[in-house]
Amino acid sequence: MIHTTNKVRVRYAETDRMGVVYHSNYLIWFETARIQMLDQIGLPYREIEKRGLFLPVLNISAEYKSPARFDDCLDIHLYMKAKPRARIHFEYEVCRDAELLATGNSTHGFIDSASKCVRPPEDLTNLIELAWS
Amino acid sequence: MIHTTNKVRVRYAETDRMGVVYHSNYLIWFETARIQMLDQIGLPYREIEKRGLFLPVLNISAEYKSPARFDDCLDIHLYMKAKPRARIHFEYEVCRDAELLATGNSTHGFIDSASKCVRPPEDLTNLIELAWS
Amino acid sequence: MIHTTNKVRVRYAETDRMGVVYHSNYLIWFETARIQMLDQIGLPYREIEKRGLFLPVLNISAEYKSPARFDDCLDIHLYMKAKPRARIHFEYEVCRDAELLATGNSTHGFIDSASKCVRPPEDLTNLIELAWS
Amino acid sequence: MIHTTNKVRVRYAETDRMGVVYHSNYLIWFETARIQMLDQIGLPYREIEKRGLFLPVLNISAEYKSPARFDDCLDIHLYMKAKPRARIHFEYEVCRDAELLATGNSTHGFIDSASKCVRPPEDLTNLIELAWS
Repeated sequence: MIHTTNKVRVRYAETDRMGVVYHSNYLIWFETARIQMLDQIGLPYREIEKRGLFLPVLNISAEYKSPARFDDCLDIHLYMKAKPRARIHFEYEVCRDAELLATGNSTHGFIDSASKCVRPPEDLTNLIELAWS
Repeated sequence: MIHTTNKVRVRYAETDRMGVVYHSNYLIWFETARIQMLDQIGLPYREIEKRGLFLPVLNISAEYKSPARFDDCLDIHLYMKAKPRARIHFEYEVCRDAELLATGNSTHGFIDSASKCVRPPEDLTNLIELAWS
Repeated sequence: MIHTTNKVRVRYAETDRMGVVYHSNYLIWFETARIQMLDQIGLPYREIEKRGLFLPVLNISAEYKSPARFDDCLDIHLYMKAKPRARIHFEYEVCRDAELLATGNSTHGFIDSASKCVRPPEDLTNLIELAWS
Repeated sequence: MIHTTNKVRVRYAETDRMGVVYHSNYLIWFETARIQMLDQIGLPYREIEKRGLFLPVLNISAEYKSPARFDDCLDIHLYMKAKPRARIHFEYEVCRDAELLATGNSTHGFIDSASKCVRPPEDLTNLIELAWS
């Protein structure tokens, strides 16, 4: 499994008139977690795109248990529990201190600049292998 | 079943550097569909909030089949397939002409201004009954 | 002068915890007004981009007089008061019925796909000439 | 003068199909700079709102010199060059390393929960006095 954590501080712009974070913003935080995981294992996403590869979202879901609020300091946990084959699957947890506010998961596939599905780059699968525990 | 459709024109701000709509924006369109459905059956969401009731998202998911692009005119279909009890469930389809670009679903519960779960307002369930077909 | 108007209905996602529209969203509405103006004079922005030309924002400002709120139906007025030479300048007014909520203005320049500044396309200047009153 | 700096890392969601950061996002970064400045001088904005006071944007502007891109690490400089009386005025600079990408400025006024204009809280003006250099 790979598990990384990144910190997000809730922006005013992310709140809505219910006084809490608007739900679609959690998906943007999930993405910051993916970017950070790729940084940590050693293949930043910007490097992947420089090769003409992209990692679009195929499906995504979120479950909201308790609202995040303006200025909260949140931990976004990312888990990769299976080594990627054609597709990569991530799970997420959004926590404020010990409190679990939301969970989520997403599936992604690699495409090239012609939008054709391709296998994950070999160096990425090697780096995942190395980071696996 | 209740089925409503609303139109969305893709904004430049909704695209990302992949050249397509950033995935979290579909959730915002789903919301425009819910607002429009409530308008059509006769109880606008702003009226619900005036009573101190809110309809937060409990969970939401989306599946992306083909990308929406800048300036696309999209139809957002909303389906309510079961009459709400404590919770309301919606399904969504995002279409560009005859092409299905994405699907989604969400579950919501009513809360009062103290964040306590409450039953759907009776006039809402009556209006849903009337609109049902 | 060219003057066009387009309608925006305030989305829940555009509000913040102050209960009103978050200020940066007005800039997105200004853009919908530019897109609509180009449609109306006969050269949609997507056609401009197909030629490898872009119209980035060089500067923008907004002044907020009275807040827009969730579900408001707003008129976004766009004014072009001088024919474009190298740069295009727009002014905006955001109204809810007769009430002026905000004003703004922006300046844009054409660039090609190599980010080099270029003159406005000749057919665009001709169409502006035709629409001028 | 008060001068603070905060760091922003560009999110994928903040880019548009021109391949650069969509212009309205700079305004959101300006806000993160204001929040951070208030933290640093010792009166976090969330504390101000707890007293029923708000600091809405009265006007804002931005000038874009060179585009910010996905994954850029940016410094957002905030400058307060005059001590606030009824209104508070900020200037901003967005830099990528030594390169100045954009500038901006904004004016704000304090309002209470009834939207009535009020003077800045006295402890805030004292803290500004202390931080002034």
